[in-house]
Amino acid sequence: MWITDSQFDTYLEDLKSWLRFASVSADSAYKPALNECAVFTRDYLEKVGFRASIHETPGHPVVYGERIVNPSLPTVLVYGHYDVQPPDPLDLWVSPPFDPQIRDGQLIARGVSDDKGQVFCHIAAVDWVIRRDGDLPVNVKLIIEGEEEIGSPNLVRFLTDNRDMLAADVALVSDTPMIAKDRPSLCTSLRGLVYFELKIRTLGSDLHSGQHGGTVPNAIAALVELLSRMKDANGRIQIPGFYDAVLPISDTMHKGILELPFNESEYLRSIGAAELVGESGFHPYERRWLRPTLDVNGIWGGYTGEGSKTVIPSVAHAKLSMRLVANQDPDDITDKFCSFVRTHTPYGATVEIEKFSGAFPARVDGAHPAVQAAMYGLYQAFGVEPVFQGEGGTIPVVADFKRILGIDTVLMGLNLPDDGIHAPNERMSLANIRRGINASIGFLTKLNQTV
Amino acid sequence: MWITDSQFDTYLEDLKSWLRFASVSADSAYKPALNECAVFTRDYLEKVGFRASIHETPGHPVVYGERIVNPSLPTVLVYGHYDVQPPDPLDLWVSPPFDPQIRDGQLIARGVSDDKGQVFCHIAAVDWVIRRDGDLPVNVKLIIEGEEEIGSPNLVRFLTDNRDMLAADVALVSDTPMIAKDRPSLCTSLRGLVYFELKIRTLGSDLHSGQHGGTVPNAIAALVELLSRMKDANGRIQIPGFYDAVLPISDTMHKGILELPFNESEYLRSIGAAELVGESGFHPYERRWLRPTLDVNGIWGGYTGEGSKTVIPSVAHAKLSMRLVANQDPDDITDKFCSFVRTHTPYGATVEIEKFSGAFPARVDGAHPAVQAAMYGLYQAFGVEPVFQGEGGTIPVVADFKRILGIDTVLMGLNLPDDGIHAPNERMSLANIRRGINASIGFLTKLNQTV
Repeated sequence: MWITDSQFDTYLEDLKSWLRFASVSADSAYKPALNECAVFTRDYLEKVGFRASIHETPGHPVVYGERIVNPSLPTVLVYGHYDVQPPDPLDLWVSPPFDPQIRDGQLIARGVSDDKGQVFCHIAAVDWVIRRDGDLPVNVKLIIEGEEEIGSPNLVRFLTDNRDMLAADVALVSDTPMIAKDRPSLCTSLRGLVYFELKIRTLGSDLHSGQHGGTVPNAIAALVELLSRMKDANGRIQIPGFYDAVLPISDTMHKGILELPFNESEYLRSIGAAELVGESGFHPYERRWLRPTLDVNGIWGGYTGEGSKTVIPSVAHAKLSMRLVANQDPDDITDKFCSFVRTHTPYGATVEIEKFSGAFPARVDGAHPAVQAAMYGLYQAFGVEPVFQGEGGTIPVVADFKRILGIDTVLMGLNLPDDGIHAPNERMSLANIRRGINASIGFLTKLNQTV
Repeated sequence: MWITDSQFDTYLEDLKSWLRFASVSADSAYKPALNECAVFTRDYLEKVGFRASIHETPGHPVVYGERIVNPSLPTVLVYGHYDVQPPDPLDLWVSPPFDPQIRDGQLIARGVSDDKGQVFCHIAAVDWVIRRDGDLPVNVKLIIEGEEEIGSPNLVRFLTDNRDMLAADVALVSDTPMIAKDRPSLCTSLRGLVYFELKIRTLGSDLHSGQHGGTVPNAIAALVELLSRMKDANGRIQIPGFYDAVLPISDTMHKGILELPFNESEYLRSIGAAELVGESGFHPYERRWLRPTLDVNGIWGGYTGEGSKTVIPSVAHAKLSMRLVANQDPDDITDKFCSFVRTHTPYGATVEIEKFSGAFPARVDGAHPAVQAAMYGLYQAFGVEPVFQGEGGTIPVVADFKRILGIDTVLMGLNLPDDGIHAPNERMSLANIRRGINASIGFLTKLNQTV
């Protein structure tokens, strides 16, 4: 079993063809390339054996494919995206970003790791299984969208409008990294997000710090006072009820985390920090994956130019966000946060709160049969027992699948943390592409028996 | 006694001529106008009866004049400046800034109140006394510099290099406002200043708040923590030893302050604030004039553009300054502040401190004979008993006179708080110009008897 060298070579050429499209969603100059890429994707899915179509949106189109073998079989909904990050700065690339090349066992191209290479593994697996067995052991549906890198502004509408078409037993997303090279992992949690901007005002306009200093409220001081009240000395967030809905970390999860590789001094070196911080009593991975956070992302006010200006600032601003964990609700946390801010804004100051975004967290049960099928596939492909891990960032589609389609998501990451996604010389190792295809073959085979 | 209408009209024309020079020190485009203004000033002083000269500096020249009647008589050193603030925004002026015009009893021109009109009162007084009595009852020396509005970068050097020439018993500066219309005042205290910029770093570069949030130190959080420790809930600055050298407020001073006009609701309305803040237990005037302050003047760090960016900032900055009162020493406070910052910078963060400026505070004894002479002059000119007041801002030359020349300074303010200095339509009332000349005549006359 598993693919041969010559089969892999063929798949690699197909992937390279896909990577040659400069499908940069953030820049309207690339719109033609995105449309051409969508057409290529649809045609390739058709060639593999999907019934495929292009769905226009107010932005870039979604490509959808399905192969329904038998309605009584389990159905998996695979999600990926064909759009990519902008390639700048171009001068740091060792080869052109849209001219895929192989160097030292790495395929180098914009989008190879995020996310064309990963979603391609599943397409190739479908092709391979059909060629070997004549058909698939399960039904497969496939969404490949074109706006992930710009926040998927039209995806929720697509899911809602096509609920019946997309009906499935489980979703599969490969858009997260493995925990380490040669160590496959399944991600069982994602964090959500709420993001706010605060504007604090204390005075009609900036005042002279000599003439008025000592009597008038300083907007930066008011903001500092408000921000300083948000956490205690142990890093615990002081918003009443903030932790109410947080799922506990089970003994099994805690033990699993303790077994994961983690080198604190190496981590500190890599980020240029002197020490780790955060909520006391939790492992760093727990603080990153399973505990919520509050971080100020930006602050500004008063005079910020060169030299000195003796003003008492009338206005100060901060951007701040919270990473949420299951089962926190972004709307509930928004209410609690706004109430806290209004209560703790110092007397004499007024505050305006603007909300930018909210995303639900997600947690997947490691005992889910589809997760077990993915474990099997990864083990077969890598020859190493996969581990469970979390992810501190947000993949909103996972919560959307649960909310709109009612299904859980298997997060089977196939790339590596140092693949340089969103950076020059984005890469994915040929070994991982090949193992990714094999892992997906194993998953599809096993899913028929577990779901 | 006192000047007649026709004498006043003549002086007014002379002042207008002086105001026609666009002597903007901040902009090199005005350099010729500054030089022409210096020549006019010297020639006018010569005409009045001073021995006058222009002293070049690396920047704009100082004009110096002296009339030594008899070395055994008291000598007063008058200080003023012929340079002015830039006139922008021009479209808000009711008449051109360098074309002095009279409207509603106000002389309108850039620099009329700050400071040509005020220093002119003393020049006119000298002229008037010489015309009446044949000579002055005291020796008068006069420094009119051209760089006050850009921080007097070359004045200390001029004072130091010309210590013998400038020797005097007391200095007289008219560059502060009266406490209220028709209520003359003498300023007996000025605050000093130290100004710093802090740069806090916690990480090698900004990090993704999802991937790293919960484990890594946030530079803005570190800065907020440091800043929040600088004052207690009563507004008291927490730097050890900060208040050690602060002169107490005597019962006499406190009683005098309670008698000064102060309308809190009117003040709040004028600055657009909901409440006054500051160190508890002190009158607002005491907090502004006789108590030191600490204010953050600017803050910035992380993402400050539009919308949201989920970064954990690696660097955060603040500009902050302290207004000092007698007898705090800027160097001593600098040491104490830096020590406090280094002690309280959170673990895991590094801090860089940059110092921009330091200026000494000043306090003048209300019983000083020259202050008494000024009280007499103001009383004669206004027909109202003058009061003592302080000033929250800094006039570094006052501390420089004490330090370099060993003399105290009488601060006899002749303009009003709403004269619009540094703003469009700067003005000074004809009544105050006339009373200012009379007050100076009274001062010169009385000084001979008190010093």
